[in-house]
Amino acid sequence: MKLYGYFRSSAAYRVRIALNLKGLAYDAVSVHLLKDGGQQFADDYLSMNPTALVPTLRDGTEAIGQSIAIIEYLEETHPSPALLPVDAVARARVRAIAQTIACDIHPLNNLRVLKYLKHDMKLSEQDKDTWYRHWISVGLSGIEAMLANSPATGRFCHGDQPTLADLCLVPQLYNARRFNCDESAFPTIVRIDAACAELDAFSLAAPEQQPDYVA
Amino acid sequence: MKLYGYFRSSAAYRVRIALNLKGLAYDAVSVHLLKDGGQQFADDYLSMNPTALVPTLRDGTEAIGQSIAIIEYLEETHPSPALLPVDAVARARVRAIAQTIACDIHPLNNLRVLKYLKHDMKLSEQDKDTWYRHWISVGLSGIEAMLANSPATGRFCHGDQPTLADLCLVPQLYNARRFNCDESAFPTIVRIDAACAELDAFSLAAPEQQPDYVA
Repeated sequence: MKLYGYFRSSAAYRVRIALNLKGLAYDAVSVHLLKDGGQQFADDYLSMNPTALVPTLRDGTEAIGQSIAIIEYLEETHPSPALLPVDAVARARVRAIAQTIACDIHPLNNLRVLKYLKHDMKLSEQDKDTWYRHWISVGLSGIEAMLANSPATGRFCHGDQPTLADLCLVPQLYNARRFNCDESAFPTIVRIDAACAELDAFSLAAPEQQPDYVA
Repeated sequence: MKLYGYFRSSAAYRVRIALNLKGLAYDAVSVHLLKDGGQQFADDYLSMNPTALVPTLRDGTEAIGQSIAIIEYLEETHPSPALLPVDAVARARVRAIAQTIACDIHPLNNLRVLKYLKHDMKLSEQDKDTWYRHWISVGLSGIEAMLANSPATGRFCHGDQPTLADLCLVPQLYNARRFNCDESAFPTIVRIDAACAELDAFSLAAPEQQPDYVA
């Protein structure tokens, strides 16, 4: 398998953790989102993924985009260890936590959106940061409540094994820290993130560990 | 089952189509996103869904948030008719189309984001509309390419039966039309939307057909 990604993309980061947890070897192919006007707009990449978004997973001749779709695919084709619980209600809870991050926090703050706010909407650097921290604060507050108020939360977001929810949470908290967001209101999230960091599958997926990392 | 939603929420619209396609009866509970300062912020709603987002599905004592998580739950608990194909690669394609809409188009243009751009970021009405149409144009261009270039596309997004991808596409095009976006560049999307409109499950899920609809 080949994973087309970018060290800082939190969507790619999710998939890296999934591949590591499942013990699946892969070749990392860097798609630099800033170099050459954005390598995601190169014809070769667009022919594989016309949305110009990373990551894309290549499995043989198949090209699959969208991190959650990729992780569900890996779950179906390599079920062990499982990244979703067995029970339908529990699966829905894990997916809802994941989707809250993947749909309602991350897309508001990714690189293309920040660029558009600054260059096209003419927002100041300060307003751009206010925007960023606002959606982190709103989004993680909801997640914190979902986690803190539920008996289903364990060492990880759901029980004592990492799931799709943790795969989304850790990269999102990484981003929040990069923008110096206040994390004091999210003690459960911070605790779960620390538990994840003890696992090689998570720590080896971090941006600093990637071959295309630049400080 | 009870579906807490809002006639204009395209995330709720997706779930309404899923429930209709699967022939599942439900009570619609309106959560008016503008009245009373936003009924999604009422304590009763937050205790069920702390993200203050619609929809929420109540199934017995369980409350499930996030439209895609709800639809995956319905798919697992009421598998027929299926909203995902059988083959893993095909399932990934359907989920990737759905996620491109649910993660990378819709969240940038939903009500809370437009309100924040206008009231907090002080964008003009015109800039707000430019923002809206920009993300529709970028997002639907990617989807159009995914659909037009693939032999897997049929009468619907994937083959000749509606899937999760169509459930996301139709509400997104509805929104695009409400904001007078140019749809001439998306002939495949427009064709599929017309095919969906012939099905009662889709037409009865439209905003105008909901009990809380206001023109």
